[in-house]
Amino acid sequence: MELLIETAGESHGPMLSAIVAGMPAGSPVSEAYINARLKARQGGAGASPRQRTERDEVHFTAGVRDGRTTGNPIALQIKNRDKTYESLPPVHTPRPGHADLAGALNRGITDARDVLERSSARETAARVAGCAIAAEFLEALGIHVLGHTATIHGIEVHGDPDADLEAARARRDESELHALGDADAQAEAVARIAEAKKAGDTLGGIVEVVATGVPAGLGGHERPATKLSTGLGAALMGVQAVKGVEIGLGFGSTTVLGSELHDVIVPGESGVPGRGSNNAGGIEGGMSNGEPIVLRAAMKPLATLRQALPSVDLRTGEAAPARVERSDVTAVPRLAIVAEAVVAFELARHVRRRFGGAHLDEVRAAIEAHRARIRDVLG
Amino acid sequence: MELLIETAGESHGPMLSAIVAGMPAGSPVSEAYINARLKARQGGAGASPRQRTERDEVHFTAGVRDGRTTGNPIALQIKNRDKTYESLPPVHTPRPGHADLAGALNRGITDARDVLERSSARETAARVAGCAIAAEFLEALGIHVLGHTATIHGIEVHGDPDADLEAARARRDESELHALGDADAQAEAVARIAEAKKAGDTLGGIVEVVATGVPAGLGGHERPATKLSTGLGAALMGVQAVKGVEIGLGFGSTTVLGSELHDVIVPGESGVPGRGSNNAGGIEGGMSNGEPIVLRAAMKPLATLRQALPSVDLRTGEAAPARVERSDVTAVPRLAIVAEAVVAFELARHVRRRFGGAHLDEVRAAIEAHRARIRDVLG
Amino acid sequence: MELLIETAGESHGPMLSAIVAGMPAGSPVSEAYINARLKARQGGAGASPRQRTERDEVHFTAGVRDGRTTGNPIALQIKNRDKTYESLPPVHTPRPGHADLAGALNRGITDARDVLERSSARETAARVAGCAIAAEFLEALGIHVLGHTATIHGIEVHGDPDADLEAARARRDESELHALGDADAQAEAVARIAEAKKAGDTLGGIVEVVATGVPAGLGGHERPATKLSTGLGAALMGVQAVKGVEIGLGFGSTTVLGSELHDVIVPGESGVPGRGSNNAGGIEGGMSNGEPIVLRAAMKPLATLRQALPSVDLRTGEAAPARVERSDVTAVPRLAIVAEAVVAFELARHVRRRFGGAHLDEVRAAIEAHRARIRDVLG
Amino acid sequence: MELLIETAGESHGPMLSAIVAGMPAGSPVSEAYINARLKARQGGAGASPRQRTERDEVHFTAGVRDGRTTGNPIALQIKNRDKTYESLPPVHTPRPGHADLAGALNRGITDARDVLERSSARETAARVAGCAIAAEFLEALGIHVLGHTATIHGIEVHGDPDADLEAARARRDESELHALGDADAQAEAVARIAEAKKAGDTLGGIVEVVATGVPAGLGGHERPATKLSTGLGAALMGVQAVKGVEIGLGFGSTTVLGSELHDVIVPGESGVPGRGSNNAGGIEGGMSNGEPIVLRAAMKPLATLRQALPSVDLRTGEAAPARVERSDVTAVPRLAIVAEAVVAFELARHVRRRFGGAHLDEVRAAIEAHRARIRDVLG
Repeated sequence: MELLIETAGESHGPMLSAIVAGMPAGSPVSEAYINARLKARQGGAGASPRQRTERDEVHFTAGVRDGRTTGNPIALQIKNRDKTYESLPPVHTPRPGHADLAGALNRGITDARDVLERSSARETAARVAGCAIAAEFLEALGIHVLGHTATIHGIEVHGDPDADLEAARARRDESELHALGDADAQAEAVARIAEAKKAGDTLGGIVEVVATGVPAGLGGHERPATKLSTGLGAALMGVQAVKGVEIGLGFGSTTVLGSELHDVIVPGESGVPGRGSNNAGGIEGGMSNGEPIVLRAAMKPLATLRQALPSVDLRTGEAAPARVERSDVTAVPRLAIVAEAVVAFELARHVRRRFGGAHLDEVRAAIEAHRARIRDVLG
Repeated sequence: MELLIETAGESHGPMLSAIVAGMPAGSPVSEAYINARLKARQGGAGASPRQRTERDEVHFTAGVRDGRTTGNPIALQIKNRDKTYESLPPVHTPRPGHADLAGALNRGITDARDVLERSSARETAARVAGCAIAAEFLEALGIHVLGHTATIHGIEVHGDPDADLEAARARRDESELHALGDADAQAEAVARIAEAKKAGDTLGGIVEVVATGVPAGLGGHERPATKLSTGLGAALMGVQAVKGVEIGLGFGSTTVLGSELHDVIVPGESGVPGRGSNNAGGIEGGMSNGEPIVLRAAMKPLATLRQALPSVDLRTGEAAPARVERSDVTAVPRLAIVAEAVVAFELARHVRRRFGGAHLDEVRAAIEAHRARIRDVLG
Repeated sequence: MELLIETAGESHGPMLSAIVAGMPAGSPVSEAYINARLKARQGGAGASPRQRTERDEVHFTAGVRDGRTTGNPIALQIKNRDKTYESLPPVHTPRPGHADLAGALNRGITDARDVLERSSARETAARVAGCAIAAEFLEALGIHVLGHTATIHGIEVHGDPDADLEAARARRDESELHALGDADAQAEAVARIAEAKKAGDTLGGIVEVVATGVPAGLGGHERPATKLSTGLGAALMGVQAVKGVEIGLGFGSTTVLGSELHDVIVPGESGVPGRGSNNAGGIEGGMSNGEPIVLRAAMKPLATLRQALPSVDLRTGEAAPARVERSDVTAVPRLAIVAEAVVAFELARHVRRRFGGAHLDEVRAAIEAHRARIRDVLG
Repeated sequence: MELLIETAGESHGPMLSAIVAGMPAGSPVSEAYINARLKARQGGAGASPRQRTERDEVHFTAGVRDGRTTGNPIALQIKNRDKTYESLPPVHTPRPGHADLAGALNRGITDARDVLERSSARETAARVAGCAIAAEFLEALGIHVLGHTATIHGIEVHGDPDADLEAARARRDESELHALGDADAQAEAVARIAEAKKAGDTLGGIVEVVATGVPAGLGGHERPATKLSTGLGAALMGVQAVKGVEIGLGFGSTTVLGSELHDVIVPGESGVPGRGSNNAGGIEGGMSNGEPIVLRAAMKPLATLRQALPSVDLRTGEAAPARVERSDVTAVPRLAIVAEAVVAFELARHVRRRFGGAHLDEVRAAIEAHRARIRDVLG
């Protein structure tokens, strides 16, 4: 059963929308759950006033009934409050770092308005809402996914989420950086953001996503297309402004000796082996190995600066300052929420592929049967 | 026209094979070209004797005639010299860092032999051969792709490939590290490899892939699935032992101010704008922007060590040393070749999607028409 | 460039919706054009009062600006006037011929309400609207597609659409059967429908879809997935209540000698060969051969009868009459519209695959280049 | 778990080959089983001497060990005895009814040799072998699929396969028409074939495929892509020379009243409802309904006639007789085998999607759990 999501909508169009197909019937869908994620996506230090005031709310038009998925394709909408698409001016001076120029070259046009309206991170509102359905499905199966901020412009605000991700989520949501690190570090990062705001500049950073409860052996080593690592890498790399992705120690594992890096296998409870460490980030051979899955994504500083960067007028080919659009200082805290969403969706896709099923009860039984089988054979 | 590759084959089976479908008719296919890549894939410092003596050779059984693609699916084979699959012993003590344990948990089995035979990097022989067909296609269109080693266990051996990638390729192939950095740095890395070999340990590192001549506006910002970044991230993350991928400055871009990071747009020759720098690695909004595409992939140290790591016997659940299989010290130089191959293939996939065509001449004309259109509209 | 459509929505939910992705920028989109197709889809002899009064209208929320595609995903909605989903009773007695029972067995549930709300042909409103965007794109490229009714309950109402499909479309739209046959035959079929209505029964029939202007050599013989025949067969077979599909003479070709069936090749104008007949329906080897494409689809009688068929109460397993829902006598005239739509979409998918392009002008130029190339090489 | 097959190979190349990926581990693979199907594919009345003497044999090079799938991609080969591709003459005079002309127009070439080498039905050898792996998998799950000839040039040789498909398969294999009808009818058809052979002509016909033991509720009504009918229609329409496909009564259902056509639902054993007839061919709403699945495919007469049809020399545009290649009189008996194969594969794809699993035992348990669930809920 292939799980898929398609989104549509422009930043200043009437609404963002999404269709999510391939969910089993009977999976819980709570508007409160989804709206909480939408609120988190809009908040955080470094957000522009627009982000803070929009108060996105999801509205379902198909596929959900009485708080449960019906098994039919799900359609959802998030209305834009700023619906000015039709009256917005053309954009002839593309912004460095944005899709503007590449998009104009893609289509052979000199007005990038249609490009930036879609390439805007505003799109992630629909994506987060759609992916939250998958996250709620995973939670019903005992799989939890949490995104949190690891660094802001190099300042480490990373904290360990421990095993109880729901407790960590509460702490994450209280932090305006969506971080779990100690208060001093967070205060330093917040000050750095304020400084950049004053200077009209922007900041990047790194987020981490952790998933617990993932059944061992999800994905497959046989082909690139069956590997969890491929799908998770694609999911994160496909998010706006992400320029790097790593699993476990990632780039850091290139400076550790093999004898020190690899997670030794130790006798486990109930006969299923455990691990001495988790440098692999829960993935070996492209498959989940039973440990928490740990991923990181690097986000570049936002490309819309209050101080316009040099650009060119596409109609004349002559130098002109890039168009200035409203902007935030940093979107890293919000990426934590988006990254969590797309990772949850990708994990749910693999759960659907591996365990099939047309109803939540059937999926749950299949996962339990898999766990029992492992205990029987290996235990 | 969707370009696809499927490979099959085990490390000690009779052969590796691949089917490549979706190539246009009329594209040049040279066995010498492919065998040169296969030879590079097998060589390099840190390779085991097996790697150095196997001398892989590609053999076509379909889809190629008179040195040209016919437009039909292409089938190729690479024979294994060490064909001992049937007689090899079971593997009950999985190796940390390998697919062994996760694969056993995936299937619910206690013998990981079938898992490791397929998850082995031996598979990349077929992949490199198949992708080389795409690389030759790209070269016929003026698009060049080069992989080279950037670091070995943290030792920087990176050198700038300059604009002429074919000249750089010759230099790359002469280096046993597949690196372009200066001789002293390379000597240091080679010594580090020798040291690790003596200690029975393994080393990781980072490779870089550069692509030039890519038409601007390849890919699309509209959906994650249309983004070049998504596909390239997936392609590299799907390679054995890769734990991280980045585009342009990647993780490094998280510590640079937005005002300093983004590549300013400047008036260009023939009216099409140019750029002041290439921190974006040639990709903005998930599309090529006309600059060289620059990617990096992080490879963990090999998981098969001469010194066995602690493991568990899957039949009993009790501690036992991991099985020791023949091993190399590092595969980073070989990853440079594999990464080059998969990036070329992914770029060719995007060329096929964007420019269609059933014959090389048709593809070439479509790319030229695209370039002319950009010059007309934007110039 | 993969063109795709996803729809969502239930028969009595708030709205039907669709996302269409993969359209090039610059393609004309006219609400009037689409609403005309929606009106045709609702009309015709044999339709229930609901069909005739709903007056569907498309509303775009993304991807269209100033009457043109932007290249971004397109989102559209069609509001339901009868929005009673939440209050409708459960369906414990499945209707023979409908998805009800199979859907209940699929999910393991005893209330088929969610199944029938989605499996209803009401879904085709969104599909027709989405496909009409592709049809308008094709028309901009000189490709025309027309669906019309061939038989009603075995009564032949088929007429030849001639070469000018737009003229035939006007005639088709004037016929309440959506047929091109002579008036007497049509009157007979209308009388047969009235008779069935009186009896509380339902009727099936056959529709034909013709496409002209399709470039020769579209699709590919190389793999089932590249064949036009595969995609067109799937497109039609995927429509509600379709039980058979054929190309050209189809089943009729099984009783004609090879020497009489095959369309002889004759010297053509401008050097490109022509054909002596079109029994192949414009497709050979899974590719368009330059002749009009001719397809037929068989529709079973509607499964919702005013006279309830025997069924079983899924809660008790005991015999009970099937639930009676509002019903039409025949949907064949409406299938003509739906079949036209899905065939247009599938042809547009192949055009996108073969000719790529990010802007309508680019697609148009690529098709012209293909035609010129054929004239050059073969002419 | 997506099951896929890719084939490669030309009619006179060194070999046909296939890669089958997505099979679970532990599924039985018997060379004898597959070779029996290859033998059936080559036999039958109306076959040319080549067909009868080639004695195809499958050879595995990956993914199979000790008579079981390993879960890794499977590679197989079938060697050609007539390996003359390189020395065969160009084909400048395309054969009506074949892919020759459309293929030449597709690529813009005047020599159709590469086209006909691939579009030839010789490709089905690899396809039948690959699909037989899926058929053996289905049999291990209690699902049986049988293809048999229904008509030859309109002569009815159809017989009812009854419930025991394996018994019917033995009878089918004994018939040189691969038919189950009575001896007189078969003798008439054989005589008709002999007559056509004498005249240098060719004959078409219809085959039927029946599948039993398919779990109820396979597929899904929600989207065209999830419907069994879509996939089965595509699978059959994608086979060489097939021009029509129908499910159950198919085109025949267009002349039956709804009240007579639809299969009434009756109380069943163990509480799960049964049906009074099977006019739907086991598929309602695009899903299996628990009854035998019944499909039919129409095959046109072979396009290669001993008497050359009129054609054109593509180099000059002038009239010339079509090239004459070796030919059979009819391929309908062989289509019965091919159709059986592709239907089995498509059903297996749906089983993989719906029930997931990485090992045969896991798939079997999931199907049993589904059946138990239905009995519990509906019984």
